[in-house]
Amino acid sequence: MTVTLHVCTTCRAGQPVAEGDATPGLRLHAALAADAPEGVTVRPVECLSACSQGCAVALSAPGRWSYVYGRLEEADAPAILEGAAAYAGASDGIVPWRERPEIFRKQSLARLPPIGEMP
Amino acid sequence: MTVTLHVCTTCRAGQPVAEGDATPGLRLHAALAADAPEGVTVRPVECLSACSQGCAVALSAPGRWSYVYGRLEEADAPAILEGAAAYAGASDGIVPWRERPEIFRKQSLARLPPIGEMP
Repeated sequence: MTVTLHVCTTCRAGQPVAEGDATPGLRLHAALAADAPEGVTVRPVECLSACSQGCAVALSAPGRWSYVYGRLEEADAPAILEGAAAYAGASDGIVPWRERPEIFRKQSLARLPPIGEMP
Repeated sequence: MTVTLHVCTTCRAGQPVAEGDATPGLRLHAALAADAPEGVTVRPVECLSACSQGCAVALSAPGRWSYVYGRLEEADAPAILEGAAAYAGASDGIVPWRERPEIFRKQSLARLPPIGEMP
């Protein structure tokens, strides 16, 4: 299944950003988009409302639990992509705990149940 | 539209809970379920992975942004239900900022874009 990795591109991660410079969120997005594995669509989003815990990303797909992770930086891109690929590859989107990258185990901000069907 | 208010019932909110006692999450769920407004389905969930920011709830519906809120307690139930009703009543699920209850404005843990369609 193709899953979506949403990346907050407005995030300043609590750092001062000079006018014209890329935000930490934009830099994280670029690093992720440059190397997205098969089955993972990297999509920019303006604010995931996790501003005090930025940079933040969210993984989601139809019928699956969604996951939000925070306190991320550009250097975490390889681990984030590894975790996103595992999520895409798991038939139900639930990756065994030990197979998740450490940042997914330790930097979870929230998870959400699959979105219900229209009543 | 009927929206879902997910309530983490396993949450201890950092408090000791004696054996046999209801967790803060269970108490919050009971308060919310007892008075759910029309269009809001209150659903218990085991862990929203926001343990350090509990109690936590999540609002979601098909085709809409999802929202996760934290640092909640039983006494917040009326404000949470007010916010959930506004979310249910907004045609696109986006409630104008000033019309959101204060806890929704100040205690956001994350928001997630609508889940994409199956590719």
